[in-house]
Amino acid sequence: MIVVVCLNPALDVTHHVPAVDWAGVNRPVAVCARPGGKGLNVARTLRALDADVLVMGLVGGITGAGVQAALGDLAVPAALTPIAAETRRTFTIVDGAGSAALFSEPGPRVTEREFAAFRGRYEQALNGAGAVVLSGSLPPGLAAATYAGLIETASKAGVPAVLDAHGDALARGAAACPAIVKPNITELQALAARQLSGSAGVDLMAVTAAAEKLRAAGARSVVASLGPEGLLAVTGDGGRWRARPSMTEAGNGTGAGDAVVAALAHGLAIGRPWDERLRHAVALGAACAAVPVAGEYSRAVYLSALRAATVFRADGDEVG
Amino acid sequence: MIVVVCLNPALDVTHHVPAVDWAGVNRPVAVCARPGGKGLNVARTLRALDADVLVMGLVGGITGAGVQAALGDLAVPAALTPIAAETRRTFTIVDGAGSAALFSEPGPRVTEREFAAFRGRYEQALNGAGAVVLSGSLPPGLAAATYAGLIETASKAGVPAVLDAHGDALARGAAACPAIVKPNITELQALAARQLSGSAGVDLMAVTAAAEKLRAAGARSVVASLGPEGLLAVTGDGGRWRARPSMTEAGNGTGAGDAVVAALAHGLAIGRPWDERLRHAVALGAACAAVPVAGEYSRAVYLSALRAATVFRADGDEVG
Repeated sequence: MIVVVCLNPALDVTHHVPAVDWAGVNRPVAVCARPGGKGLNVARTLRALDADVLVMGLVGGITGAGVQAALGDLAVPAALTPIAAETRRTFTIVDGAGSAALFSEPGPRVTEREFAAFRGRYEQALNGAGAVVLSGSLPPGLAAATYAGLIETASKAGVPAVLDAHGDALARGAAACPAIVKPNITELQALAARQLSGSAGVDLMAVTAAAEKLRAAGARSVVASLGPEGLLAVTGDGGRWRARPSMTEAGNGTGAGDAVVAALAHGLAIGRPWDERLRHAVALGAACAAVPVAGEYSRAVYLSALRAATVFRADGDEVG
Repeated sequence: MIVVVCLNPALDVTHHVPAVDWAGVNRPVAVCARPGGKGLNVARTLRALDADVLVMGLVGGITGAGVQAALGDLAVPAALTPIAAETRRTFTIVDGAGSAALFSEPGPRVTEREFAAFRGRYEQALNGAGAVVLSGSLPPGLAAATYAGLIETASKAGVPAVLDAHGDALARGAAACPAIVKPNITELQALAARQLSGSAGVDLMAVTAAAEKLRAAGARSVVASLGPEGLLAVTGDGGRWRARPSMTEAGNGTGAGDAVVAALAHGLAIGRPWDERLRHAVALGAACAAVPVAGEYSRAVYLSALRAATVFRADGDEVG
């Protein structure tokens, strides 16, 4: 079983309005409400891969009840700890030209007592888990060292962790020695405090240096997602890898990053070698970018991307 | 007790975003979620006046549960009939300059069986009611004659009705002979199929003619709300009235119209004469326009507006 921790889930509401009046009254032609937050996207993708998954997180108020009910409808197993404050919503308005405005509410304030209740259940769930995924933002009230603490607990239970976070939570989490850290280029830039891509494209040398720094800080392996450029990995055995999709799928970048995390956790839990993990990850990322809803993927795109992806060690030995 | 029927309530979510990026990611600095829909505003204003009130309506899904919980928090008594479909949300984005964009979801589809359950409870609640208010839009699945049917049922039980609706629901409802119909100038224009105000202001002769037409159709009295111009009433005893606030309060026009309905129902239930009803209504409208939240009002503005309002019969005899 893969435990997916989602401490700051959301109810994602999307309004489709063909021509938006930004100073007036609009009547959306279509309304969607879905459970969201990066961890939930990862869990949904793992479920779509038929992996045994358990979502653990914090939910409060009627919006939290809505997230819980929607996970039930999607048949995603979840053990959610109740909190007093209201789970956040996001609102996205998509116009006829596909332009989108996103309004993301702040997360609910979590008390020490509530988080202690979560921790107790988390420790129990680690028994028999094959991997744990820690993904997304931390709600107010939780310290930047929160993920680091959860990774240490997992290590003691012999469960490898995959971390997808940003800022201090990422830096502190990496120092707790997770099996894999998955930053995107923006997160890596913020940590490195320098630009890693420019008009000439992604600076792969600089990305490698930033990833090695995260590894020196404690992470066993680092997989950087580079958008259309695919993945760059520095692994525990000293390997340096690149994985590239055959073509670029436009669209859902958030969904694609979460799919990479799902694939990496999946490969970790079942002990696949790195070349297979990365091929799986880059194909699943492309397959998720191809559909508009985070957490869902195109099986046809996945299968063709799996065949067409290029995976090679950075010294030039092409594996795939 | 005043029964307030709200068949299409909403959860009104407001995001305050100082500078909106209409093509990017926004993080609201303040988020409010309140029960909404015209009937609920009327009920909240009646509660603020210490009137004995009962909200009756239809709620579904987690959004409906949220509306119900919020009414409980506001201590507004409610007897809500459950439906399978999800209660609607409205989503308003207010920027730093006070400009607002509103996104209003379509209402839930109501089945015949669900409405029959509502009707049964409505008939019971009419026992001992002093007035009934029917306010706001009808959700999908309910016929335009819905309000007309509810008014006839109230009449048989000896309970006078106040109707605030638009389009066919207003036209059909007026024909069922409610005690008071409260159109605003836009609704009256749509019924009359002609402009009732222009660059020279409101055409009071034309408004009076349109109101008399509604009375000829069946309404016992018609009170037209004219925004800053106050109220124009044609009453059952042949009276023609005008009520004007001393000054114009900028702001919340929706809240003001709902406050007028609350005041009219209040005056009807306790049997006040027309001049007092209209003075009360115009002052409460001004007091609600003075605060940004529909259903709430400024007591200070109310008291000064009550003193300063002008109420007179249209033949020129000033009463106030």
